[in-house]
Amino acid sequence: MGEIVGRQPVIEALRSGQEINKILVAKGSRQGSIREIIALAREKGIVVSEVERALLDKLSAGGNHQGVLAQVAGTAYVELEDLLRRPEGSDWAPFLVLLDGIQDPHNLGSIIRSGEAMGIDGVIIPKRRAVPVTQTVMKSSAGAANYLPVCRVANLANTIDVLKQAGYWIAGADMEGDPVFSQDLTGPIGLVIGSEGSGLSRLVKEKCDFLISVPMRGRINSLNASVAAALLMFEAVRQRGMLS
Amino acid sequence: MGEIVGRQPVIEALRSGQEINKILVAKGSRQGSIREIIALAREKGIVVSEVERALLDKLSAGGNHQGVLAQVAGTAYVELEDLLRRPEGSDWAPFLVLLDGIQDPHNLGSIIRSGEAMGIDGVIIPKRRAVPVTQTVMKSSAGAANYLPVCRVANLANTIDVLKQAGYWIAGADMEGDPVFSQDLTGPIGLVIGSEGSGLSRLVKEKCDFLISVPMRGRINSLNASVAAALLMFEAVRQRGMLS
Repeated sequence: MGEIVGRQPVIEALRSGQEINKILVAKGSRQGSIREIIALAREKGIVVSEVERALLDKLSAGGNHQGVLAQVAGTAYVELEDLLRRPEGSDWAPFLVLLDGIQDPHNLGSIIRSGEAMGIDGVIIPKRRAVPVTQTVMKSSAGAANYLPVCRVANLANTIDVLKQAGYWIAGADMEGDPVFSQDLTGPIGLVIGSEGSGLSRLVKEKCDFLISVPMRGRINSLNASVAAALLMFEAVRQRGMLS
Repeated sequence: MGEIVGRQPVIEALRSGQEINKILVAKGSRQGSIREIIALAREKGIVVSEVERALLDKLSAGGNHQGVLAQVAGTAYVELEDLLRRPEGSDWAPFLVLLDGIQDPHNLGSIIRSGEAMGIDGVIIPKRRAVPVTQTVMKSSAGAANYLPVCRVANLANTIDVLKQAGYWIAGADMEGDPVFSQDLTGPIGLVIGSEGSGLSRLVKEKCDFLISVPMRGRINSLNASVAAALLMFEAVRQRGMLS
């Protein structure tokens, strides 16, 4: 990491209070939302430098920077214990999403975006064989990655044990699972989504308390991983009566 | 159109009975799912030719063909009257999705994929200012575009009038709309999804009978168009008691 590219992601990073070292703007770009970025940066005492567009092209490694790039200290992943620390007196049972090997940055970004919109408490991703929070993820999340805590763990199966000890129910998303409507998702939930190609890994699947599926009526009956994740989160939040 | 590229899309096209002129396979590719493709093609009397991989590269215009390409007569869009013709005695109220200017082929493919899984009756897209069913759409739909009828119309607003006359309720997806849970979606429904950038166009929005939104709890509160479409379809089908 190190850079956030594109107008909306930079605006969201500024608004979220994320630590930004410096903002680089392409020479001559002072119209539209760039104006807003400059004003927000001034407000927060962040230096804005005008640079050649070619430098932005280089720093953003081919990303669509739209004339603006923010240099940040790096993605602030959170620690697992921080995710598990709950505000007192909340009437919302904790809801975490664990991703068992999502490879496509657009899917990770989309899940973070949907998760933030549904008000979940955080996302847990493994350090190996999974995409980290890259620029593309940041951009696909439409800035939501600045708000929703993301935790990287060495071993997802061990993390599931920790969550279970903390009182979470672990629900694995699996085509063979029970229809999601038949399961009560109003308690503390860790929802596990498998990888695009091969679903849940064997060990993770075995550790789940129960398996749930999105009921379908078609002939192909396969859903994109990020769509399946959104539907399952949506149903859980609907059950909690928190969407109305 | 003219070509379907990649192993899974070609398998799905074969299975769906789509009219295929010829299948081209890269020289030396006879392992794995290519074997299945050759067997299916033989079953259906479709010619399979071995060609140089370079020819596939050229015909697929940079698409990831995985050593196989099917030449088809072109996407068989359906006519609006065919979409409106209902099988007799169905206990399922018709459910169509209208896309008001979706630009991104991955979003169109994803909506077709989710729609097919939810068992909707078809998708209506405008001829102008919207992506048609391209190879990328086909691939993003994971083959669902071979099953779900897609209709292209000259004017979406006029089409809405036709649907209304046929007894459909037109529900527009809009951030300002009522929470989807508060609306009855069990009757004949035309669900209109706006474009990625700017939502529903003014005229289309005015023609909607009511507007619905996905309730959200976050701070960014924006959903990808294909995720929003999936959530709204899912809720409608849930209300119909057809998912369990």
